[in-house]
Amino acid sequence: MEANTIIGLIAGFCTTVAFLPQVIKTWKTKSAKDLSLGMYSIFCTGIVLWLTYGILISDLPIILTNIASLTLASSILYFKLRFKN
Amino acid sequence: MEANTIIGLIAGFCTTVAFLPQVIKTWKTKSAKDLSLGMYSIFCTGIVLWLTYGILISDLPIILTNIASLTLASSILYFKLRFKN
Repeated sequence: MEANTIIGLIAGFCTTVAFLPQVIKTWKTKSAKDLSLGMYSIFCTGIVLWLTYGILISDLPIILTNIASLTLASSILYFKLRFKN
Repeated sequence: MEANTIIGLIAGFCTTVAFLPQVIKTWKTKSAKDLSLGMYSIFCTGIVLWLTYGILISDLPIILTNIASLTLASSILYFKLRFKN
């Protein structure tokens, strides 16, 4: 595998799993006051569009990474809506 | 321009500008307690790798969107480190 491809894969891994510590933190503290509702609304919309794009062009890496991202980011959005303080 | 390409561009726009409402909110409230340091550390690392990847394969859209993402996400990381409560 080319060095470029490896860097791209690690990059995609980082920007996807990055949301996991936020999911865990918000779940544990039950506090989402400082999280921006606008950010997670726009971000989830974007991820749904990335997923649509991946399906339209039949690109498996785009589909799989965006399913993972959507799971994590929509969990944070749900916590933001559920934990009012 | 193809419909697929337009969806991809809107997707990229959304997942990039999504961080702007968080930057504005954290700047205004000076409160970053609920934000995950782990998330923004890993995310910024991933964006630097995406930028490296874009430069290595000479892809201007990857370079430009990741410069914008890095500016926004690193601002949030800075606020997280600066605003202790």
